[in-house]
Amino acid sequence: MAPTTPLTNQGGRFVQTSAPPGVINLGLGQPSPRLLPLAEFGHAASEQLRAGNDPLVLQYGVGRGYEDFRRALARFIAAEYEQAVDSDELMVTGGTSSALTFVSETFAHPGATVVTEDPTYFLAHEVFACAGLELRGVPVDERGLDVDALEQLLVGGLRPAFVYCIPAFQNPTGVCLAPARARRLVELAEAYAFVVVADEPYVALHSGPRPGSLSRYDEGRGCVLSLGSFSKLLAPGLRLGWAHGAPALVERLANHGALRSGGCLNPVIANIVHHTIDSGFLAAHVEELRAVFGRRSAALSRALRERAPSARFIAPGGGYFCWVDLGEGVDASALLERAESLRFIPGSRCAVTRDLRRYARLSFAFYEEHELVEGVERLATLLTS
Amino acid sequence: MAPTTPLTNQGGRFVQTSAPPGVINLGLGQPSPRLLPLAEFGHAASEQLRAGNDPLVLQYGVGRGYEDFRRALARFIAAEYEQAVDSDELMVTGGTSSALTFVSETFAHPGATVVTEDPTYFLAHEVFACAGLELRGVPVDERGLDVDALEQLLVGGLRPAFVYCIPAFQNPTGVCLAPARARRLVELAEAYAFVVVADEPYVALHSGPRPGSLSRYDEGRGCVLSLGSFSKLLAPGLRLGWAHGAPALVERLANHGALRSGGCLNPVIANIVHHTIDSGFLAAHVEELRAVFGRRSAALSRALRERAPSARFIAPGGGYFCWVDLGEGVDASALLERAESLRFIPGSRCAVTRDLRRYARLSFAFYEEHELVEGVERLATLLTS
Repeated sequence: MAPTTPLTNQGGRFVQTSAPPGVINLGLGQPSPRLLPLAEFGHAASEQLRAGNDPLVLQYGVGRGYEDFRRALARFIAAEYEQAVDSDELMVTGGTSSALTFVSETFAHPGATVVTEDPTYFLAHEVFACAGLELRGVPVDERGLDVDALEQLLVGGLRPAFVYCIPAFQNPTGVCLAPARARRLVELAEAYAFVVVADEPYVALHSGPRPGSLSRYDEGRGCVLSLGSFSKLLAPGLRLGWAHGAPALVERLANHGALRSGGCLNPVIANIVHHTIDSGFLAAHVEELRAVFGRRSAALSRALRERAPSARFIAPGGGYFCWVDLGEGVDASALLERAESLRFIPGSRCAVTRDLRRYARLSFAFYEEHELVEGVERLATLLTS
Repeated sequence: MAPTTPLTNQGGRFVQTSAPPGVINLGLGQPSPRLLPLAEFGHAASEQLRAGNDPLVLQYGVGRGYEDFRRALARFIAAEYEQAVDSDELMVTGGTSSALTFVSETFAHPGATVVTEDPTYFLAHEVFACAGLELRGVPVDERGLDVDALEQLLVGGLRPAFVYCIPAFQNPTGVCLAPARARRLVELAEAYAFVVVADEPYVALHSGPRPGSLSRYDEGRGCVLSLGSFSKLLAPGLRLGWAHGAPALVERLANHGALRSGGCLNPVIANIVHHTIDSGFLAAHVEELRAVFGRRSAALSRALRERAPSARFIAPGGGYFCWVDLGEGVDASALLERAESLRFIPGSRCAVTRDLRRYARLSFAFYEEHELVEGVERLATLLTS
């Protein structure tokens, strides 16, 4: 079945993952190309990088990011998270993936065990493995990480260096950690002296109620390090994000050797993003993303209900992903092998130790609504053929 | 003695290390503020980031950097290194400090030993320590790393994961690795199966003969990974550099989990720098840096000979640094404690295990010539008071 319009383009010289023409790749966990604000970002760059401004923005930057950028960032995050955020609780990162490398070297020793949700983001595995860490999975259900199961492991003697989780609109399941569990998780972190590394790029991308950040449950304990990113809010290529936590926790990260040596991880891009915060562009852009992704998420859910009634899923309230149970006996990887014009992430790629072959992660962030419907049609055809 | 003009400014909100007014800080190993090309970089940014250009430059980037940037980079490096460089031998990094973190996790296992020059760059220690590596120092003399001493360690059973060295205009000594030693170092790397990580930000900044990159001695062995950086050639705040080596070696680094996850470490900045290469600005700028730093290096050497005749040093042929033997019985750290308006890096900070208290690292890259002369005056006063 031919799409009704040309597919959203993801090709050419710049991209990490190409989608061949005619293929709908619901595995793409990245912003829609038409939502990448090239001209607005370029305008901010030309305002910030011009003769007469302080050239020292090009110098080795302040390790945690310069103070008035962190103040602007604190205001932006506080509004999105609906909680007080202080600039002393923030540091600039080069995006979450590289931040996880620095986090691994700061809060864990090689050979240490790290707890992750099971399933979890399928490339976090590799970042932790590169740092010599061992993974231990704890199941996720419709209320997020199974904190009782985590507690049993702790009572049984497990001492993780940190717990890595995605509390809001989890990747891949799309679920949010229930408030009672969030509170209990932070209490366990304090009692058993581990850090909770909360990967939170989707908090602001809610189509229903705001989930908030896990950091609101920290309440001065100094156990939660929340990682934010402009990758999903502005553009992945900026390689800019932030770490948010108690000043002492953030300070430990900022003392990593590479930051002491090179200074701030991306001061020039931070300076340009600073302009997009102060001008109000960023907040307006995030507002638009919420509306667009809300419509796309709804379109995907509706199409699944109407056209693939054997599939079961929880309609996502935000984020990028919908986690679909394709039914007993279905193997998503085998399905993919038969699929010619559809791609998605099979559940097994996101699994730590659970058997999640019957699941698929579908992203609704990348394609237009009619393309998502088309993708579900193709999935339904696969399931019934 | 008051300076004849206001000192070169290094202060304000953006900088990692401030020099208080009135203090000459010859420890600053960074480009001169007046040589930071803010307007030219801003012009390149506005050319690259404007409506009509491909917005996918803001997407997750190709892990190693997009092909035509690597081709442009290969042309630039080939001209500066006077050797053939292929785009397949290159990958983009987020600057050398963060690259050393990824190198440590790729080419070493925690607990492994890394050989460094003794003395070496004083913050590289901390990057390696964060990755759980042990340091073993090998002395440097006026022809660079003492390769015979390294060989003795290897014959004695030492098996380093890699050797970290700064072959051209070493930090802190300013010396270059002699060609015969460079050749022997690469032969040892092949024989004992270790990688040589060559930190080479200063190769192009020669005021005399070009030293070339250590990579010219690799000759297909696949033992040398050369790290380059725009920090010293354009601006530190860009957080952009490159790794250069045999394709298989570069590929190993590009397979680090954080790169598989986040894509290229700094694609937007790479895209802007691409413009400065193609426009010819970068080559012209590096040419200017060579001239300016050459004059400054000569002024520092002349001032040392004339005003501090008890100090001994090898006049640097390039780079940023001059390594000064302050004389028997002198303790540079104690000298610093007495200094009110002068700073420098005492030799002991650069030492791995050697006793280098009588040495000082002076940078000539940051200040104007008359300020360097003034700094030497202050040093001479300290030495004789």
